[in-house]
Amino acid sequence: MMTAQSNEITSVIKYKLIEKYVPFIDENKNFPAFASGLFTEQIDFDLAYFPLKHLGYKVIVATMIDILAMNGTPAQVRIDLALSNRFTEEAIDELMSGITFCCTKYNIKIVGLDFKPSATGLIIAASMTGDIKPERAVSKSGAKENELICVTGDLGSAYTGLILLERENKVFQADPSQQPDFVGVDYLLERYLKPEPPMWIAVETNNNFLQPTSMIALKNGLAAGLIQLCNASKLGCTIFEEKLPIDILTFDKLKELGIVATTIALNGGEDYELLFTIKQDDYDKIKEMKEVSVIGYMTAESAGRNIITNDNKQFELRAQGY
Amino acid sequence: MMTAQSNEITSVIKYKLIEKYVPFIDENKNFPAFASGLFTEQIDFDLAYFPLKHLGYKVIVATMIDILAMNGTPAQVRIDLALSNRFTEEAIDELMSGITFCCTKYNIKIVGLDFKPSATGLIIAASMTGDIKPERAVSKSGAKENELICVTGDLGSAYTGLILLERENKVFQADPSQQPDFVGVDYLLERYLKPEPPMWIAVETNNNFLQPTSMIALKNGLAAGLIQLCNASKLGCTIFEEKLPIDILTFDKLKELGIVATTIALNGGEDYELLFTIKQDDYDKIKEMKEVSVIGYMTAESAGRNIITNDNKQFELRAQGY
Repeated sequence: MMTAQSNEITSVIKYKLIEKYVPFIDENKNFPAFASGLFTEQIDFDLAYFPLKHLGYKVIVATMIDILAMNGTPAQVRIDLALSNRFTEEAIDELMSGITFCCTKYNIKIVGLDFKPSATGLIIAASMTGDIKPERAVSKSGAKENELICVTGDLGSAYTGLILLERENKVFQADPSQQPDFVGVDYLLERYLKPEPPMWIAVETNNNFLQPTSMIALKNGLAAGLIQLCNASKLGCTIFEEKLPIDILTFDKLKELGIVATTIALNGGEDYELLFTIKQDDYDKIKEMKEVSVIGYMTAESAGRNIITNDNKQFELRAQGY
Repeated sequence: MMTAQSNEITSVIKYKLIEKYVPFIDENKNFPAFASGLFTEQIDFDLAYFPLKHLGYKVIVATMIDILAMNGTPAQVRIDLALSNRFTEEAIDELMSGITFCCTKYNIKIVGLDFKPSATGLIIAASMTGDIKPERAVSKSGAKENELICVTGDLGSAYTGLILLERENKVFQADPSQQPDFVGVDYLLERYLKPEPPMWIAVETNNNFLQPTSMIALKNGLAAGLIQLCNASKLGCTIFEEKLPIDILTFDKLKELGIVATTIALNGGEDYELLFTIKQDDYDKIKEMKEVSVIGYMTAESAGRNIITNDNKQFELRAQGY
């Protein structure tokens, strides 16, 4: 989760340090599935335009997506909140209502809740366990050469929503009499403020006897997700610009703003969709699923991580911090 | 975990809100054991006197103590760090060395690690799962009337260490040429800066076929722990001042500072010991364990929560926020 300003520092610090400490980390192949997230004011969200109820909802979604990426079912969550004294009890109620609403909707038990003071703003830590059938478990590292790369939903719409929210917030801060102009962009705002987890993918793949060979949650953009997947599986990849699932509203709005939609789809982040690989033989099963796009295939590591553009040029995929 | 200044606000906010949201929380009787903690600079620790390596170690101890309180064995931990840009890579290495050292020592797998930027100071979120044999699981709520109340280790020494650290820090801030005076108080400082979890209790109780009927980790003082235990079991309690395990060094140092040791043992916090109840019939088993003190017994709820002082007066137990 991020505000537009925090995007750069997040990635640069993050990947350098994570790479350094990889030797200390046991890959979580144990059961249950186990995920966590830390969300801090200004860095991950700006309360000037992020309603607390939506924030509570999104924190749960942002944590459960990692359980879904292991092919698990979210089961239990613990919430640790740190609050500065500007938060009223009503504000806390709003935040909690979003948390409890999302947990009820997705049948997640809240098994722990703690409140602490904070010297600055709001800090939310969420940790979650999930149930996994061992034979259905998926990790980042199971992809093989020539397997197909799939992505759920559409990319870049949430980040486009964030751009619009930050733009209107700046206008409002400069002149509070200005009303925000959000006509016709509800979908984009909702994708950023209240994303829905792709719960249906586990049901669909299960019903179609389809087992993803590797999977990862898309939080920091498709490019970062692909690079992580490639690194974990020691492979390369080729994806096609024309196959990227970009919603027409996202495309038009970004064009209006003078931004190339492909860049946002690759590097915007905030998608909370799933990126996964399947065996080529499973193509017939996946093509029936409307909300899944096949965007490319895995290659040998030596071939690198590439995108073929609409004008048939090849570029190396890049993400901040890599 | 706390600095002396943060003690008051912590408790007042905390218990009011926790009580309010109790109806939303499913008690964690599911397996695995699951615990979490959120630690923020200034509120939970002051880096002016808290070495980062010790801090990393203590964060793990402060989280695993909740797994021990369920009679579980800590198994997997996830760490989410938020860092402001004043933290160098060397500083992060120090912190991580304490985390990895403690995890290696207690055979806890680090299964997740994430780094994010922070707008202010250092924020550490830790979440942990543990293994429990269902027949050995213990919760806060299993105590019965007349059962014996036991506590591991000694109480108040860590908080006394904190008082000394904050006093010397103030002297140093006022005049940096002053060297801190910590002669002869190593034990007190270590209890605050590098507490050891009472791992031995699970081994000892198991070897003696002793099953605690309820258990809770002591983080915010004995009084708060007892009140939570009483509330969960819908009982009262009576404890005896003369039975409180207060180390002689703690007692002497507090006397020198003009502070009553019993107050610190009851309300100081930072002990990271275990409070538990046992059946009266198990008294013979517990009395052989040197590091366990029997401090009182559970009563009917209507009798209230009381302490009998050395001069045989009865007072109601109080903790901030209750």
